[in-house]
Amino acid sequence: MIPKKIRTIEEMGEFGLIDHLTSGFVNRQESTHIGVGDDAAVIDHGTYVQVITTDLLLEGVHFDLVYTPLKHLGYKAVVINLSDVYAMNAAPRQITVSLGISGKFSVESLEEFYAGVKLACEKFNVDLVGGDTSGSMTGLVITVTAIGTALKEELTLRSKALNNQLICVTGNLGAAFMGLKILEREKQLHSEDPDFQPELSGYDYILERYLKPEPRVDVLLALKEAGIVPAAMIDISDGLASELLHICKASECGCQVYDERIPMAEETKETAGEFQMEPMVAALHGGEDYELLFTVPLSDFDKVSALEGVTVIGNITDKKGSALLVGNDGNAIQLQAQGWGAREE
Amino acid sequence: MIPKKIRTIEEMGEFGLIDHLTSGFVNRQESTHIGVGDDAAVIDHGTYVQVITTDLLLEGVHFDLVYTPLKHLGYKAVVINLSDVYAMNAAPRQITVSLGISGKFSVESLEEFYAGVKLACEKFNVDLVGGDTSGSMTGLVITVTAIGTALKEELTLRSKALNNQLICVTGNLGAAFMGLKILEREKQLHSEDPDFQPELSGYDYILERYLKPEPRVDVLLALKEAGIVPAAMIDISDGLASELLHICKASECGCQVYDERIPMAEETKETAGEFQMEPMVAALHGGEDYELLFTVPLSDFDKVSALEGVTVIGNITDKKGSALLVGNDGNAIQLQAQGWGAREE
Repeated sequence: MIPKKIRTIEEMGEFGLIDHLTSGFVNRQESTHIGVGDDAAVIDHGTYVQVITTDLLLEGVHFDLVYTPLKHLGYKAVVINLSDVYAMNAAPRQITVSLGISGKFSVESLEEFYAGVKLACEKFNVDLVGGDTSGSMTGLVITVTAIGTALKEELTLRSKALNNQLICVTGNLGAAFMGLKILEREKQLHSEDPDFQPELSGYDYILERYLKPEPRVDVLLALKEAGIVPAAMIDISDGLASELLHICKASECGCQVYDERIPMAEETKETAGEFQMEPMVAALHGGEDYELLFTVPLSDFDKVSALEGVTVIGNITDKKGSALLVGNDGNAIQLQAQGWGAREE
Repeated sequence: MIPKKIRTIEEMGEFGLIDHLTSGFVNRQESTHIGVGDDAAVIDHGTYVQVITTDLLLEGVHFDLVYTPLKHLGYKAVVINLSDVYAMNAAPRQITVSLGISGKFSVESLEEFYAGVKLACEKFNVDLVGGDTSGSMTGLVITVTAIGTALKEELTLRSKALNNQLICVTGNLGAAFMGLKILEREKQLHSEDPDFQPELSGYDYILERYLKPEPRVDVLLALKEAGIVPAAMIDISDGLASELLHICKASECGCQVYDERIPMAEETKETAGEFQMEPMVAALHGGEDYELLFTVPLSDFDKVSALEGVTVIGNITDKKGSALLVGNDGNAIQLQAQGWGAREE
């Protein structure tokens, strides 16, 4: 029943594919404010809007149960969706969790997973309101949908970046990716020698960044207190380069960010050194950091610079399609999105 | 990382498992009207409510690409979710579609899938507003979430059945299951002899019921026109027995339905005969019919009996936990839910 393979998905890339497949759809419902193409869909309820976002997590693609505790996985599956809600400047309210479960799971192992889900619900004040549970012939399949609310005028859409706005990121980048590299290395060594004891000490920070990401609701609160209203915002799930390109595309603008301004933790840089890789590659393409990338008016420079955990890394330009990384020597390279599957080594 | 297997999921069953895993969750959000445990979650927006439902479809568990055209699959993945929305007496508004795609799919094959999604969107006037797309190491994974709206007082919850109410079903039952049996038989014969040509003629009705189910929005409109307000309602996705037990549990009541009143198509009965199985087994446990099961006050007997496509099959009783199928001889048997996986032969 599967038609002859003519165009491969790799050729088109994930984002091109979604654009292509959804291009023929027309919105009919008055309440549909924004459909496909931001961190979340937006549904209009008059005095406020509701944002809806969903993520699919597949065993062997998005997580490896050899080194991912199920409680962490439950927590992470929820918070990566909440991160999308926060990136719209919305407050998360409800989630649904659906699981496809293969035969190797016991009730106890699922209790572990739900303990992580519950922890996230308690911490971020959201309600588990539904889902679907099914047997799976293959690996574990997780789908989480998160629902939040916002005031319409406070929504931070990808399309709201304007020329000369400052580009800011929270926290630091590339840590989650280097944590994953460590886990993969130790798994590999263990598979080669079953007596090998994984050595994870000294990597606590980057491991935690990978296994237990935290959405940056703290920074959103700090921005609010400082009277800063972000214009465009997106969470960094696929790496800085990819997210910058999303903003430039949606806002029909360009950007330039400065190599030396990209924040990275010492542990990230040191670990990258162990793997003889450029830490910048992890920051640009590693993904899974779940930090926020946002723009603010140039006039907010002093206020935003004073905030802890926020770094100004560059600015929006009017050169549509030109997303530049400027090095110390003043030379600039055009940023490329690393598509689907390209992150695997 | 996976804990020692102590309790198996089979022992607990799908519904027991969901109840167990979600029992420790407390709702915190004012807007959460109903959480886990009906066809859909209900979110309160003041003058109206919103219902949200999600279904996970896994290759090899819920569908077989050998005999399921991708366009049909796209259509079905959407309408089974809309069916849950309709079963709340709500109007569907938006959907999200997430896909995990293995390497065997081309862009063209996904276009086929989305053509089915689009057809369903157009027919039922819903907007595709989001989703997630990912590579999959195993089979095709589909998650659809549907969102609808209803007036709060018109919601038809599982918990609203009352003693002496009439139990009604739409259309006929067991057809989808017999359609699936035919497809499985022909697949088996083809695998034993590659020259074998599948013989599907004469089974058109039951094949269509399996491959292209239609939510019974027509009956909901007819009920409205006739001035009938269903009390409890549920869609028949897992078989009549399982759905009756859901209503009895949620409404804390019993029920009795009459063997000879259960509507079945001639083609369903004849095909069951070919397989030397009781057609009633298909009706009670086959599932995937996506007909509606609902209760109405006894006083609506004349009105509901006059409706085309609706059959009164029994009544609600005050005998909590007693869900009886009464035979022609007056003997009654207690209905059992066929759990997860129990439907496979």
